[in-house]
Amino acid sequence: MIIDTLIEKIIERQNPTCVGLDTAYDYLPDDMKQLYGQSGAALAVLLFNKKVIDAVCDVVPAVKVQIAYYEALGVDGLKCFSETCAYAREKGLVVIADCKRNDIGSTAEQYARAFLSKETSCEGKCASCAEGCGQPPRFSCDLLTVNGYLGTDGILPFTALCRENDKGVFVLVKTSNPSSGELQNLRLADGRTVYECMGDMAEKWGEGTLGKYGYSRVGAVVGATYSEEAKNLRARLPHTFFLIPGYGAQGGNAEMLKNCFAAGGMGGIVNNSRGILCAYKKRGGTYFEAARAAALDMQKDLKSVLGEICAK
Amino acid sequence: MIIDTLIEKIIERQNPTCVGLDTAYDYLPDDMKQLYGQSGAALAVLLFNKKVIDAVCDVVPAVKVQIAYYEALGVDGLKCFSETCAYAREKGLVVIADCKRNDIGSTAEQYARAFLSKETSCEGKCASCAEGCGQPPRFSCDLLTVNGYLGTDGILPFTALCRENDKGVFVLVKTSNPSSGELQNLRLADGRTVYECMGDMAEKWGEGTLGKYGYSRVGAVVGATYSEEAKNLRARLPHTFFLIPGYGAQGGNAEMLKNCFAAGGMGGIVNNSRGILCAYKKRGGTYFEAARAAALDMQKDLKSVLGEICAK
Repeated sequence: MIIDTLIEKIIERQNPTCVGLDTAYDYLPDDMKQLYGQSGAALAVLLFNKKVIDAVCDVVPAVKVQIAYYEALGVDGLKCFSETCAYAREKGLVVIADCKRNDIGSTAEQYARAFLSKETSCEGKCASCAEGCGQPPRFSCDLLTVNGYLGTDGILPFTALCRENDKGVFVLVKTSNPSSGELQNLRLADGRTVYECMGDMAEKWGEGTLGKYGYSRVGAVVGATYSEEAKNLRARLPHTFFLIPGYGAQGGNAEMLKNCFAAGGMGGIVNNSRGILCAYKKRGGTYFEAARAAALDMQKDLKSVLGEICAK
Repeated sequence: MIIDTLIEKIIERQNPTCVGLDTAYDYLPDDMKQLYGQSGAALAVLLFNKKVIDAVCDVVPAVKVQIAYYEALGVDGLKCFSETCAYAREKGLVVIADCKRNDIGSTAEQYARAFLSKETSCEGKCASCAEGCGQPPRFSCDLLTVNGYLGTDGILPFTALCRENDKGVFVLVKTSNPSSGELQNLRLADGRTVYECMGDMAEKWGEGTLGKYGYSRVGAVVGATYSEEAKNLRARLPHTFFLIPGYGAQGGNAEMLKNCFAAGGMGGIVNNSRGILCAYKKRGGTYFEAARAAALDMQKDLKSVLGEICAK
């Protein structure tokens, strides 16, 4: 079960860090930009990602690939997204596609097919056929972020495919950005906030899919930047695994993060994008060595507040 | 101003109908599927879309291209999405990309670049250069659907580019699907429902961008299937243009739609996807002739309740 796999990798590596491959072309070192140019941006980003993946794949359990940065490069960018996801999986990393998809049921089914199908591509490479089964190449990841504004029937097509193909989703509950409270912190007439209500829905959507560590296939996005809300949600949603953005560039620190975790440092994984991809700008050295060093520093920082990570 | 352009096309054609190119491979006629096969799905869908666009481009003002159906076909599908949008614009149609994108500010900026940039592609074809300016090809549309769950700072990057490049967005307010009320119809402590609150935000995000007919660059998605909510929103959001899904296959009819419009049949456009793309299955004939006939029937149906469409 994918959440169990993720948890076991976190325990094995003692590192609940997810490297965010939100790779803007601007993040690349000048010499790469000069070599590839704007017209070779997607290729340059792919090379950059692969070297970062090589450098961190034995110290972190997962990567999160933010599709917006690839869509901004058009069709070539999507090819780069697809190949980045495939490469990370080859290297044994759990791949979270951060796409925040959402739509009515029939359309959500198409998104689910796009991101939660079993194979990346057939063309002779898929698990079920040797010569190519005629299925067009798709994007393939382990976990997908989704937005629950449309309610249950917009989520069910995702959770159905998750069960079928051993995948999972993270529902946006309390996001890390400054204005997330405008809607999410509003109080409902029944006494809950909107984010609590969304959290309750996520917990409910996960029912019946618990893995051996007690977490379901339906996780939640809970920003590191809102410590009080995180504490509240951690207690409220005992079976919901958290994807935690907002560490580093967005202002979240380890002390604030403690609230996102259950006993034994369980129940969450913390994303860091710019802090790892752009580490070379502060530290010097190559971008991939700097990325590895930053991932190791983050491990130290998280462990200083979480202690030994272990299933209890 | 793009909303003025859309309104003028609606008035000129006396048809507030948007053809939804949610083209599932399954919708294609058997002979096309036999000819192209699953491995040629994206190419077959592009050909189908082009013939439908040719058949309807003088009777409707706009198309809505639902990206999920293209993502489900992988990178080739996205190429088809891009070429479908470009072809529809060439044929003089307003192109709505239905992507429901949403994220924190820095990421929303990337999505905005992907869909609301000025050019589809440079490679010698863009308006600003003759030889290719080195910018990678992007997706290009006139209007983009977005999800406002993250609040203002997740929307501003879209509206900023809208002003710069004469584009617009539609914010999900009250969606057409059966479970949309689970969150959207909840009552807030301040007396509003969640969808009213989201509608108020959309109206606010559009401030300062009114066109000559009194509608802003920030529209709202309001489902035809919820007539009472539509009536409420139409009165509440006087400067917000509505994109109205849910007609036909989802159960919305012309009588229910009346509430989505202001005086003179102004302020909205109604989407129909399956009812037009799959019309040939009920009517017989070629799929493109049937699509045209269905678009004309829909015009008649809408005009029977809206009367003459005119700026008042």
